[in-house]
Amino acid sequence: MAIRLGILGYGNLGKGVEVAVKDASDMELVAVFTRRDPSSVSILTAGVPVLNVKDIASWKDKIDVLILCGGSATDLPTMTPEYAKLFNVVDSFDTHARIPEHFANVDAAAKEAGTIGVISCGWDPGMFSIARCYANAILPDGKDYTFWGKGVSQGHSDAVRRIAGVKNAKQYTIPVEEALEAVRSGKNPELTTRQKHTRECFVVLEEGADAAKVEKEIKEMPNYFADYDTTVHFISEEEFNANHSGLAHGGFVFRSGKTGVNKEHNHIIEYSLKLDSNPEFTTSVLVCVARAAYRMHKEGMSGCKTILDIAPSYFSNTSAEDLRAHLL
Amino acid sequence: MAIRLGILGYGNLGKGVEVAVKDASDMELVAVFTRRDPSSVSILTAGVPVLNVKDIASWKDKIDVLILCGGSATDLPTMTPEYAKLFNVVDSFDTHARIPEHFANVDAAAKEAGTIGVISCGWDPGMFSIARCYANAILPDGKDYTFWGKGVSQGHSDAVRRIAGVKNAKQYTIPVEEALEAVRSGKNPELTTRQKHTRECFVVLEEGADAAKVEKEIKEMPNYFADYDTTVHFISEEEFNANHSGLAHGGFVFRSGKTGVNKEHNHIIEYSLKLDSNPEFTTSVLVCVARAAYRMHKEGMSGCKTILDIAPSYFSNTSAEDLRAHLL
Repeated sequence: MAIRLGILGYGNLGKGVEVAVKDASDMELVAVFTRRDPSSVSILTAGVPVLNVKDIASWKDKIDVLILCGGSATDLPTMTPEYAKLFNVVDSFDTHARIPEHFANVDAAAKEAGTIGVISCGWDPGMFSIARCYANAILPDGKDYTFWGKGVSQGHSDAVRRIAGVKNAKQYTIPVEEALEAVRSGKNPELTTRQKHTRECFVVLEEGADAAKVEKEIKEMPNYFADYDTTVHFISEEEFNANHSGLAHGGFVFRSGKTGVNKEHNHIIEYSLKLDSNPEFTTSVLVCVARAAYRMHKEGMSGCKTILDIAPSYFSNTSAEDLRAHLL
Repeated sequence: MAIRLGILGYGNLGKGVEVAVKDASDMELVAVFTRRDPSSVSILTAGVPVLNVKDIASWKDKIDVLILCGGSATDLPTMTPEYAKLFNVVDSFDTHARIPEHFANVDAAAKEAGTIGVISCGWDPGMFSIARCYANAILPDGKDYTFWGKGVSQGHSDAVRRIAGVKNAKQYTIPVEEALEAVRSGKNPELTTRQKHTRECFVVLEEGADAAKVEKEIKEMPNYFADYDTTVHFISEEEFNANHSGLAHGGFVFRSGKTGVNKEHNHIIEYSLKLDSNPEFTTSVLVCVARAAYRMHKEGMSGCKTILDIAPSYFSNTSAEDLRAHLL
């Protein structure tokens, strides 16, 4: 029998999960839940009901894993513990600093209910965390580097859009090529924030807005831009819609470490992603983690887990025998 | 109490394990076993006994994990099942085609003894297998590419050394830069063996040997060289010793896959290693896997495992809490 998945929240992430499930022959989507009026939400998959989230409890025995497609700022901190009382759940909570607190809340709820809750899945936190964990363990005497981009930062784009006079904006985070090369060549550089990434903004102004003032306000914005070299381009709405509607992203995780009697040997481990669609890659990870959550629950486990607690083979729809014979 | 490690076999791998253990604050090396006369083997670590392997059974309760540093061709197929009867064991068995058979033998022995045997750990099989497993699961609609090098192939170097007239030789496997770039850019090329790697040989001739004959014999050697573009350099013994005594290696694992309603988004996952010392990196992995084997055994598991069955956090000497707070 296929693993029965539910989706809660039908934005970019919810849609991504729906699409990713189609490539998973061992899974089927059985319901989509929304906080909106269900009749206003039209999904891609024929025959799958769209329901209001208030009716979700009656699906307790009809869903194996519920994928929570809410935001980290306000939705997931309450949503994940709440639905872990009813379902095995998976989320993409990405506020790094609040992970311990979120873990504790989900762990308490999931242990009491006998469910599995896997938090903070995606690529960072997620696949990048996995890369850091393995590489730190293997090369304990070393240095970590994480670079993001080239890609769209939603948070920085939002920050620019909040400036008076800005009609629309997109912000790209770009790793500095020289810094990447210095790390890759084993030089173990000390890099400032400014030396690691640059920021590039494409801005559509409201009519009559003062471009110079907007540019100054962007470049001097604390936390978001002040510590970076930022380039601002003012473009037309047509150009914006034609060239800047994508959600590409990616990045690089490096570990540079030494081994040997006299630490004479250097090693570089590099993990990188180049993604045309940040939400679709994230949801492709979420669907694999849902498979893992189902298996862990079947084995009698419960409580909160992270992607670091899951063996690679649990991600896969291929049998252990086939993995050993063909992939190992 | 520290995890007590034993080493069986004191060649390049055994020495690498000994060095790697020094960086693991949760482990201690308690004994080295050899098939040679122990008095002929001098190790780096003061106070650790070197013993003949015939005395190993008396160490049954004094060692938590025994790392088997034998060869895949003749040692490990019998060694790993044999010692799994007494100890938790870890090996680096790398004959891909024979993994299912080796797994079955180790599994039977380890299950009967209530021990854990982790086979085929290192980087390929090993970390590259992990990269392939995750990436295949996340992007089921895609294509895999593995490149090796630039690095020393022991098997190919040995093959050249067996040719009459060759005094010493080293063979480097080199990935073709254009092929790497084509994969990295998402072109999903179909690549022949010749298009993926070139081979470069540095050869010291015996006095009076016929260079042209040796070169022809190398380039036409079936399986090893005939399908590749091979360059042969004849050099002096001095130059060989000065510039070609290292054991550097590395490689690249790519997954290029598509997502989206109309498969309109491409994603590239790349995992790469650049290693100054192939054996020392391999043993750094073995030591992490020994930590994982110890934990799995403590949790009551037994039988044969591979690196695909081990969660990333089991590799790490950092607590789950600290991993979540600082690394996830």
